[in-house]
Amino acid sequence: MRELSVIGIGAGDPDQVTMQAVKAMRRAEAFFVIGKGAEKRELVEVRTAILAEYVEGPHRIIEITDPPRDRTPEDYTGVVQDWHERRAELLEAAFEQVDGVGAILVWGDPALYDSTLRMIEHVLARGRVDFDYTVIPGVTSIAALAARHRVVLHRIGEPVHVTTGRKLREQGLGTGSTVVMLDGDTSFTEVPGDDIHIWWGAYLGMPDETLIAGNLREVEHEIVTRRAQLRANKGWIMDVYLLRAF
Amino acid sequence: MRELSVIGIGAGDPDQVTMQAVKAMRRAEAFFVIGKGAEKRELVEVRTAILAEYVEGPHRIIEITDPPRDRTPEDYTGVVQDWHERRAELLEAAFEQVDGVGAILVWGDPALYDSTLRMIEHVLARGRVDFDYTVIPGVTSIAALAARHRVVLHRIGEPVHVTTGRKLREQGLGTGSTVVMLDGDTSFTEVPGDDIHIWWGAYLGMPDETLIAGNLREVEHEIVTRRAQLRANKGWIMDVYLLRAF
Repeated sequence: MRELSVIGIGAGDPDQVTMQAVKAMRRAEAFFVIGKGAEKRELVEVRTAILAEYVEGPHRIIEITDPPRDRTPEDYTGVVQDWHERRAELLEAAFEQVDGVGAILVWGDPALYDSTLRMIEHVLARGRVDFDYTVIPGVTSIAALAARHRVVLHRIGEPVHVTTGRKLREQGLGTGSTVVMLDGDTSFTEVPGDDIHIWWGAYLGMPDETLIAGNLREVEHEIVTRRAQLRANKGWIMDVYLLRAF
Repeated sequence: MRELSVIGIGAGDPDQVTMQAVKAMRRAEAFFVIGKGAEKRELVEVRTAILAEYVEGPHRIIEITDPPRDRTPEDYTGVVQDWHERRAELLEAAFEQVDGVGAILVWGDPALYDSTLRMIEHVLARGRVDFDYTVIPGVTSIAALAARHRVVLHRIGEPVHVTTGRKLREQGLGTGSTVVMLDGDTSFTEVPGDDIHIWWGAYLGMPDETLIAGNLREVEHEIVTRRAQLRANKGWIMDVYLLRAF
């Protein structure tokens, strides 16, 4: 194992892969697929379908079962770091099975709320396997959300604050527009004000894609209800939203 | 003219187009290419090269010359809005030459510091031409920057503030990490502090791609000098950077 490609594959639509990603996939002989357990089986299947569509030659898929993680810890950073360490060990073991170019497919873009690059730095720092790696950027779920709503993320010349549900609750909105990812708790309901617009999307680019937009106070209940239904039906949900004062 | 596709084509590397973008390009019969004048001729040429590579059937390229714009106005928002109005008029005239599906190729992603979607809303609001339009998301220069530096945009669970050079000077860094776009004045030199890291990139994905990273106080002079040289050599520059305290 001398080379690894970390490949962003877009927000969920198999057509959102780039030509660069396709070329990188075709160079790889083995793919490490990090699964999130049975409830996200569908996400593993989309990745497998992407490989089946774009990679014609022989290739191996090495599935790595993601270690479980406490989602509501007191010491959030500590728990995440420990989880990264355990993932690093699993990846290391998987690396030992491969001799040529390996690849990891990452939802969206590897630089945004994804732990693969940190995991790789962990593995390199541990020094048990050595390799070079390349990052292939991907279309983010933020770009996919904006495209489906046909909205620009910001007003002319204004900033965009990209944050998590947790940080939204702690810090509130940014100056300008605010994009919220990783929000399992519908934190938008806790944002005060009657002058906020929301553009919300779930399962972007996938068959169950659902979009809701409007005055936050008028549509928040609909989003909460719809989100709970969707999550109950599928067992998991991935969503993202944009907030901006009128 | 009944349909328009606004297609994000990535940060500069022709391989950064998505399969979705390629499919949308192949459906279009005419492409509106909005040029920025002679100094950005190379950017028009990259787009033309993308079309030549991916679109096999007959297609027309309708070049629209971008109206000039005062880059250092007192009334920034007013000047930009007026500029959008003049671009709307030009696009409207171009629309009248097309009967089927038209397309506009946009650098990076159409939702981020690009005026095409606002221009289209202007054209629709004026009511002289009527059409439906679709947005195809693209890889942003932010994702391209992070990929080339192999860096994650934020610390674990922390936010990212995406802003312009102008707003950086007015408002300073955001909480967490800060990405700066549209900075013609190397505003990073005005950010105080000895504990800031910078990841800078110019012409990302293009043959002249240049990357510099390090302690801001140690590399800022190198970036300013290098940027001025590159800009003088080529006549234009596109760059973006990430700032974060150690």
